[in-house]
Amino acid sequence: MQTMHIVSAYDEELAYLARRIAAMGGHAERMVEQSIAALVNADAGLAQKVIADDAVLDDGQREIDDKAIVVIARRQPMATDLREIIGAIRISADLERVGDLAKNVAKRVVAVTEARQPTSLFRGIEALAELALTQLKDVLDIYATRAVDRIGFVRDRDDQIDAMYTSLFRELLTYMMEDPRNITPCTHLLFCAKNVERIGDHATNIAETIYHIATGEQMPVERPKGDKTDRVTAPGTIASN
Amino acid sequence: MQTMHIVSAYDEELAYLARRIAAMGGHAERMVEQSIAALVNADAGLAQKVIADDAVLDDGQREIDDKAIVVIARRQPMATDLREIIGAIRISADLERVGDLAKNVAKRVVAVTEARQPTSLFRGIEALAELALTQLKDVLDIYATRAVDRIGFVRDRDDQIDAMYTSLFRELLTYMMEDPRNITPCTHLLFCAKNVERIGDHATNIAETIYHIATGEQMPVERPKGDKTDRVTAPGTIASN
Repeated sequence: MQTMHIVSAYDEELAYLARRIAAMGGHAERMVEQSIAALVNADAGLAQKVIADDAVLDDGQREIDDKAIVVIARRQPMATDLREIIGAIRISADLERVGDLAKNVAKRVVAVTEARQPTSLFRGIEALAELALTQLKDVLDIYATRAVDRIGFVRDRDDQIDAMYTSLFRELLTYMMEDPRNITPCTHLLFCAKNVERIGDHATNIAETIYHIATGEQMPVERPKGDKTDRVTAPGTIASN
Repeated sequence: MQTMHIVSAYDEELAYLARRIAAMGGHAERMVEQSIAALVNADAGLAQKVIADDAVLDDGQREIDDKAIVVIARRQPMATDLREIIGAIRISADLERVGDLAKNVAKRVVAVTEARQPTSLFRGIEALAELALTQLKDVLDIYATRAVDRIGFVRDRDDQIDAMYTSLFRELLTYMMEDPRNITPCTHLLFCAKNVERIGDHATNIAETIYHIATGEQMPVERPKGDKTDRVTAPGTIASN
């Protein structure tokens, strides 16, 4: 009877960690959505909300870390449970970074929108953010359902995000060449785009952690890390020597 | 006798983790140094070396993670030892990211240097990298010696790094305004500078982890996160409305 009780309290501790991760994930998704909405609509108020909301993820990560360490010390878990708990520490760190990146987008809203840009400029980053958000949502859905067999989409979609980011990078460089007044806002947009691309990377990291929790193995196929823009130059506007 | 033996094998496991972290740290430092040297000297060969060297840190992180989980499962550590082992997982993740950031600088060497820039352009990023490297070295030194009482410099120096990055950001925007041919290389230099600033942040993260290992407490005073450039615009060249 006593053993039953202990086991079930332990299960509840693990379930609590999983619920806290899910809550952090939902919060991170909203921050990403709202940071992009603030950018596209030049909504400084919404940007301020996103900036303030980041504290919730910082606190969440700290709480999960402390809780995880207490659970390990008290329960001395083996194998799968230990991977589950260490995994919670890792996933909460990724989600905390997603929040930082969304907050950084929000902080750039003023610099990007002080000279009013044509809305076409925001089309690209909106599409990129939509793809990264879908990735994050689907990965968190797999965390909740543990349907690791459905994880195959992750790398393909990460490739799509990288390709879209590269094309956006090139487009923004071209705008900057066309008119020096575009340089400052487009530079900030470049950093926003880079942040969104990084959010996609963190979603992939989370998928890798979920895979490791479930299988004890590394997720197969080395993922070529993110950014493919390192050699991108704007076409036809710069000396090639 | 048996107990003595077990304890000492356990100490050796903890010491092994610490040695592996120190080795990763040394490797990360070299990658940062060499990526900046490759950038400043337009040395594509050295850049290739840095890119290849990154795999060592990826492997190091994976090894430390696996080893740490084995040690937790086998030794069921309490309190300080548990913080030590979880800390090793965190620090190796930060060092792996430092390697990624140095690799990303190295990958930009070709794009930055294809149109030969005046060397003055690199002065700023060299100085920034020197400061970030000093931060990383001093933090790793504290990890090795456990002299946590000396950790006070970390936040001040992180502030210096942020201030220097902000001034470099502004300078690079100005170069881009002056001549559209500067736009592509300066954009890549902006990302290089951002990477170096992030390396400083990871050094600060590591300091926070070391503090937590030694004391069980969070390092005091909330650190305002890195980048202060979110509102930076180039002076006098852009419409203010």
